Amino acid sequence: MIRPDYLLTGASEIATLARGPVPRVGPAAAELGLVRHGAIALQGGRIVALGSARAVAARIRRPPADRVIDLGGSVVVPAFVDAHTHALFAGDRAGELPAKIHGATYLEIARAGGGIFRTVRSTRHAPAERLIRETSDRLLRAARGGSRTVEVKTGYALNHLGELRLLGLLPAIARRTGLEIVPTYLGAHAVPPEAAGRRREYVNEIVRRTIPQVARHRLARFVDVFCEPGFFTVAEAERILRSARAAGLGLKIHADEFVASGGAALAARLVVRSAEHLLATPSNDRRALARAGVTAVLLPATPWAALASRRSPGREMVDSGVPVALGTDLSPNSWVERMPTVLAHAVYSARLTPAEALTAATVNAAHALDRPVGEGMLREGGPGDLSVFPLGSVGELGYRIDPLPSLIFRQGRPVFLSELRAHL
Amino acid sequence: MIRPDYLLTGASEIATLARGPVPRVGPAAAELGLVRHGAIALQGGRIVALGSARAVAARIRRPPADRVIDLGGSVVVPAFVDAHTHALFAGDRAGELPAKIHGATYLEIARAGGGIFRTVRSTRHAPAERLIRETSDRLLRAARGGSRTVEVKTGYALNHLGELRLLGLLPAIARRTGLEIVPTYLGAHAVPPEAAGRRREYVNEIVRRTIPQVARHRLARFVDVFCEPGFFTVAEAERILRSARAAGLGLKIHADEFVASGGAALAARLVVRSAEHLLATPSNDRRALARAGVTAVLLPATPWAALASRRSPGREMVDSGVPVALGTDLSPNSWVERMPTVLAHAVYSARLTPAEALTAATVNAAHALDRPVGEGMLREGGPGDLSVFPLGSVGELGYRIDPLPSLIFRQGRPVFLSELRAHL
Repeated sequence: MIRPDYLLTGASEIATLARGPVPRVGPAAAELGLVRHGAIALQGGRIVALGSARAVAARIRRPPADRVIDLGGSVVVPAFVDAHTHALFAGDRAGELPAKIHGATYLEIARAGGGIFRTVRSTRHAPAERLIRETSDRLLRAARGGSRTVEVKTGYALNHLGELRLLGLLPAIARRTGLEIVPTYLGAHAVPPEAAGRRREYVNEIVRRTIPQVARHRLARFVDVFCEPGFFTVAEAERILRSARAAGLGLKIHADEFVASGGAALAARLVVRSAEHLLATPSNDRRALARAGVTAVLLPATPWAALASRRSPGREMVDSGVPVALGTDLSPNSWVERMPTVLAHAVYSARLTPAEALTAATVNAAHALDRPVGEGMLREGGPGDLSVFPLGSVGELGYRIDPLPSLIFRQGRPVFLSELRAHL
Repeated sequence: MIRPDYLLTGASEIATLARGPVPRVGPAAAELGLVRHGAIALQGGRIVALGSARAVAARIRRPPADRVIDLGGSVVVPAFVDAHTHALFAGDRAGELPAKIHGATYLEIARAGGGIFRTVRSTRHAPAERLIRETSDRLLRAARGGSRTVEVKTGYALNHLGELRLLGLLPAIARRTGLEIVPTYLGAHAVPPEAAGRRREYVNEIVRRTIPQVARHRLARFVDVFCEPGFFTVAEAERILRSARAAGLGLKIHADEFVASGGAALAARLVVRSAEHLLATPSNDRRALARAGVTAVLLPATPWAALASRRSPGREMVDSGVPVALGTDLSPNSWVERMPTVLAHAVYSARLTPAEALTAATVNAAHALDRPVGEGMLREGGPGDLSVFPLGSVGELGYRIDPLPSLIFRQGRPVFLSELRAHL
């Protein structure tokens, strides 16, 4: 009989999300795999027993009293997976906000030296130690919100060496935070100002120089392209993504954020791992995503923070049969760090149900990042990564606007909040 | 020379908000009374010195090293004042959300036994100890977000004895949480189902029976009325508010939340302390509020949580010269607990600038609750109630979507997070 390291009892509900290897939000999304009045036993970093309190008690030797944690009716969910961030940057853009509030356009802010190129300047000039420290602080706060796996895109250096430098910082940030970081190379975030007249050369550099190096040194897991008029065309995006695939890297695409430009259709044609944003994707292209099985990574706080009238099409994607995942889009333009905040935006802005939102923030987000099967779920033999929320039911996640976990387990051990640095 | 109990140094910015006794959001709102590279000395619960680090150091005897707290470049703001909550209730309405997402109307949900009367049923039946515990837990989480003073409305009992019972619980909740609670009697939240055919009798009960008792026993500071078609008419609201004024109570009104019904015009005519919601208030009535000096208490998360297309008219109110304050509207219908969350909604939904939002969440909210002059500000001689946020500038409050304070001082003493109960 197993004697576990820890026994969690007294959970009113455990959402296991354990419904198979390639799950998708959809009609079955209400099936959260709920276990009521449940218990979880953890040993050696993994879940060794999960079920009703009675069934678990019958299968294990009870650990010492100080290793038995009574959750007092709280709920347990898998650790969150944040499928889309631009967390690696220096500086902020708070100073642009009053002008935006008063109606300044993106172009006007860019002409005043603002927008993405402000962040590119500050990131290029920031010492490595500062980038590691500030990004780690952001991600530790994300961890405090229950995130365990976080995708991080580059894209604020926008030249060969600068982008490689950013990718090279991510292992140190992973060590410092204890998080699983999934690196994505996004040199095609924008054409940098100094390459304005030479965009073909910039794409050549990405395809011929940076992607081969990224692949050779395994610096990133994915390559992403911002496919939008004024950024990269569909043809350029296709060229970059095909070269990434040839180099053995996974594919992602920022598509149809501002206008319907064919980005989602390209995503379906190339069968990329995920297409992101998709605010303006027409229904035909939604259906193409569904047929191709491409996951839509939705970022419901982003249009809200951009003061846009569009909202993220969560309901429309689910109703079209597209698998949906969620991300914070943490960046200087949409500075949200914690996934519980995003769950509320997924419900109140993107019109997912709370059950769909939880699926999208766990098992579907793990799928969008091609993570090992079992991540984003709670099941025997799987990783002991979970969050406890002081809620009466799992359905209150996404319903409550600003909840926080009361306790986090990572690799089978409790993470006391004091371990997450004093200033969190 | 004073030897303070605590010395806070190393603040990159201190927002003092100390600009006079009846401040208002408006053209002067950018004047947050910022002190850069500042320090604050606290003694006996009050601020005894505030200014540049050098100036403060010259005026005090340095306390022992363990009473000197280096804020490492963080910012300091006054403790928040939450000017509008319905925090005193039992149960939740998460179960109604999937139907709302799929388009069910308020009326359909009400017919299925949902909406406000579901909360009325669960609140009426909840034992006092449960109401005290659950409300205190919510407010302790609000305190963790930096709130110090919180208005709490009744309105989920909707009968004479039940409403008095709710008011009677608030002192215990204040003791349990250490917060300043401003009680508001809102018997006129809705006509209860059992009085449906006898609405005149229900108003009579409020006016002739409950308000006199509330005033005699000083159970509430304010009386509020939900003035909206289907709830209480302008004439009924006027009758209730005049009786409250005659009894010596302060006046508030829920006005124009769903339709322009003349509620804001009544607020201006009666010169009430505050009018709340105001989503549909026409520009004429906004100008009347400005002329009367009535504070608009805006609740920017509420229309978002209601899936409404309207947004809270922060920009319009400020541009009309109306003093603006903020509240969470914490209720089963808009379950937001922390004021930093509301600051972001005030910016991204209601289109206040971050400086206007901070003014509205501190000194203007204190004014909306008729609090002692000095609350919601930081100044020498004033209360030592403040929050430290790990931000580079005060302007990042409202810009960042989900920040949390790293340290809170209450009555001149640090509140360590562990004191705010383990499950927060």
